[in-house]
Amino acid sequence: MPANPLPDAALLAGGAAGPRALRPLLDTVLDALAEGAAARCGPLPAGGPDAVTQLLERCGPTLPDHGTGALDALHTLVTALAAGAADPADPHCAAHLHAPPLAVAAAADLAASALNPSMDSWDQAPAASALEERLTRDLAALVHPRGPGPDALVTTGGTEANLLGVLLARERLSPRLALLCGANAHHSVHRAAWLLGLPAPTVLPTPRGILDPAAVHDALTGLDTLNCTAGPPTPVLVVATAGTTDSGAIDPLPALADTVAAHRRGRPSAFHIDAAYGGALLFSPAHRAKLAGLDRADTVTLDLHKLGWQPVAAGLLTVPDGRALAPLGHRADYLNAEDDTDAGLPDLLGRSLRTTRRPDILKIAVTIRALGTAGLAALVERTCDAARDLADRVAAEPRLTLHARPAISTVLFRPVGAADEQVAAIRRRLLTEGRAVLGRARARDHDGRTVLWLKATLLNPHAQPSDLAALVKLVLDQAPRPRKDSSR
Amino acid sequence: MPANPLPDAALLAGGAAGPRALRPLLDTVLDALAEGAAARCGPLPAGGPDAVTQLLERCGPTLPDHGTGALDALHTLVTALAAGAADPADPHCAAHLHAPPLAVAAAADLAASALNPSMDSWDQAPAASALEERLTRDLAALVHPRGPGPDALVTTGGTEANLLGVLLARERLSPRLALLCGANAHHSVHRAAWLLGLPAPTVLPTPRGILDPAAVHDALTGLDTLNCTAGPPTPVLVVATAGTTDSGAIDPLPALADTVAAHRRGRPSAFHIDAAYGGALLFSPAHRAKLAGLDRADTVTLDLHKLGWQPVAAGLLTVPDGRALAPLGHRADYLNAEDDTDAGLPDLLGRSLRTTRRPDILKIAVTIRALGTAGLAALVERTCDAARDLADRVAAEPRLTLHARPAISTVLFRPVGAADEQVAAIRRRLLTEGRAVLGRARARDHDGRTVLWLKATLLNPHAQPSDLAALVKLVLDQAPRPRKDSSR
Repeated sequence: MPANPLPDAALLAGGAAGPRALRPLLDTVLDALAEGAAARCGPLPAGGPDAVTQLLERCGPTLPDHGTGALDALHTLVTALAAGAADPADPHCAAHLHAPPLAVAAAADLAASALNPSMDSWDQAPAASALEERLTRDLAALVHPRGPGPDALVTTGGTEANLLGVLLARERLSPRLALLCGANAHHSVHRAAWLLGLPAPTVLPTPRGILDPAAVHDALTGLDTLNCTAGPPTPVLVVATAGTTDSGAIDPLPALADTVAAHRRGRPSAFHIDAAYGGALLFSPAHRAKLAGLDRADTVTLDLHKLGWQPVAAGLLTVPDGRALAPLGHRADYLNAEDDTDAGLPDLLGRSLRTTRRPDILKIAVTIRALGTAGLAALVERTCDAARDLADRVAAEPRLTLHARPAISTVLFRPVGAADEQVAAIRRRLLTEGRAVLGRARARDHDGRTVLWLKATLLNPHAQPSDLAALVKLVLDQAPRPRKDSSR
Repeated sequence: MPANPLPDAALLAGGAAGPRALRPLLDTVLDALAEGAAARCGPLPAGGPDAVTQLLERCGPTLPDHGTGALDALHTLVTALAAGAADPADPHCAAHLHAPPLAVAAAADLAASALNPSMDSWDQAPAASALEERLTRDLAALVHPRGPGPDALVTTGGTEANLLGVLLARERLSPRLALLCGANAHHSVHRAAWLLGLPAPTVLPTPRGILDPAAVHDALTGLDTLNCTAGPPTPVLVVATAGTTDSGAIDPLPALADTVAAHRRGRPSAFHIDAAYGGALLFSPAHRAKLAGLDRADTVTLDLHKLGWQPVAAGLLTVPDGRALAPLGHRADYLNAEDDTDAGLPDLLGRSLRTTRRPDILKIAVTIRALGTAGLAALVERTCDAARDLADRVAAEPRLTLHARPAISTVLFRPVGAADEQVAAIRRRLLTEGRAVLGRARARDHDGRTVLWLKATLLNPHAQPSDLAALVKLVLDQAPRPRKDSSR
């Protein structure tokens, strides 16, 4: 007796019939994205968390017994997702390292979803693994042009890449590895130490927003003075940042590399650079020099879902010599049995901490082929130019204070005379009213006091001068009125 | 002076103009998927790794200086990816827990790529985070119907979910946590212990493919006898599996839960169940009883990119009480400043080990809405029925040996009289000739000897009896000829 036919919603994305099944569904998704964007009518929905929760509740139960079919489900939920999105394609959505993805990258990602290669064994991803092997080496060679065998692992982002950097140092040097980083380092460095069972990092103050090589030198020199017992020097990993989350600042990489190198003689040492934000400056001849010293790191974090305009995820960890990845080697008979490897089937299991893994390399490869490195450079330069333009506008406006010229594409500013609470409230008011998504950061003001700043992280290469002018006006409209001159 | 216009390949996927930019690109992707599938003409390309490497090399350089435009890049690389794929939509691609994704889920995933919500703060993902909050609770309540506050975290798969299970136990119990698992446990349990700085797990033999509660009892009883110093009992995490990778076997969960419960009085203990494969049986009234005892775990791994038909990634870790997730709480001023949280902005940072995070919940939510739990149950049942059908065919074939009736949808079998090397060679020959993707597993034969088996992991609900008959024939055609009766 034949079973009941399966519903249309059970059609597969792959195989010869997949494209036919996908076409009407994709039309529905595009219509829903357009409807949702029109309903939102701005960078994010107005009304704050309650309004968004209600928007979702109006869609009905999330775990129904009976389905409503593919077209209804796509239309209802994608419209709600778009209507309730903070869309980085809107130039006023500029809080975070949250990039607007390129259409070409999003389209490529659909092919990854439809074919669903899994990168943990060759027989689940023949072409995808071959593509990854080639492009990761090419990208690593950009970072480590003099490395003996540059290679890179694809990660879920900067956080996983930083974790891998710390893990490789732990495995190479010691399970009692010490971490040394600046107060400007990403929080994922701290989380990596915790996860890996290492002591919390030693944090050096970064009053100017960047790590001071002299302070690193002093810390390395003093590292063992607290030990009561004489013993071998504590192995250390120094972590620097090329593009901090708060201000986009780039640590002085050559001097830091020198400092680590000077201490390497007496102490097992490693040097990791978190270039999740700044790494893409490598594509641009105009900006590349800012990353001098990057190639002297043992491990480097990149992240093309920041500058790179990829949909999440598109992280990378690069090494100058692929042999440094050996500690990740791992055997599971069903995925990389020794006789299969001997017979020529590539062993992929040591190329990630994940097992099943999406081929995020595809969208990256398609984007780079579409634009070339020259095209990516143009996008990087456009974005940095927009940040410079915004900084100029802030500097020209007497009611605003500019923190500093942007190192990459982040601009910190605040209304003159505003208290921290007022700065935080301006950000929340713009969010709740659906007018702008701005970030926040603590940094010193020109009098040396640490205060709260509004943060614009520009990542949209299409942002126009008029968008930036409007953003400044939005903030001015919310800023406290200047007090009348008290001498009058 | 206005800057040069950006090329078409720089158009964004989001915003009001995104759908218009995406449409021609998606048409190109669908055409390329169809062309690639036609060129492949089977479950995977013939010729093995060398042929696939050449296929990719013919596409040209991966990191060109100048781009070829979006349409060329998509067409060239997506065609190559499809032509060189091991496509799980083909019923003869059945080696791994590598599911053919549903078209509705892949289409929903496009919306995630286009809008690019990032799940680390509310102001990057207002609607996506609200959707995740609702559906993760609903799914967790399926697993823990009597839990005081069921909740779930979305993960990159079973591996990350198992890592989280071990991490939560370490944080709750002790940094000197001991792990106890069967030889049938997934390799990610071992990797989690290594990553987290814990001793390697104690591994109990599982000659019958499942963990023996009596052996767990003995191991728990003897856990401290090796310690020379008297001290408090070593805290322990017991890991069971509901659906092993090798055979789909389900450990005796109620008896294991009883064993852990009996030891909890004298020893700090936790119980984790890896139901990455078997968890979706919960959707089916016909199969749900196989998971009795699942709700007695402290943490449970689910993975809807296995049974669940999602594109990678779609993992989950469920807990009966969301308060158990508190150890993941984490503060980063730019993402969850205290005054923002106090003002009502949801704090998302403690809901993952990742920071930036794709909204994998969207495709899951759209799939469940489209099919309902009843529709998912029908797919689960269809898949299990196909495995039963395949097992029947193997059992009826005198030249093949069936390992056991399938517990879920995995069928182990081998040609009568074949040596292990012959079994491994059959698998590789079918791969290299592009005829079938079968897996491999070691397990006892009916004489109690551990031998190598061919593994068919059926995950395609559309597989027809004729597909299964053809798969059996493919193996028979490669099997060694039975020797002539030696008595003649």
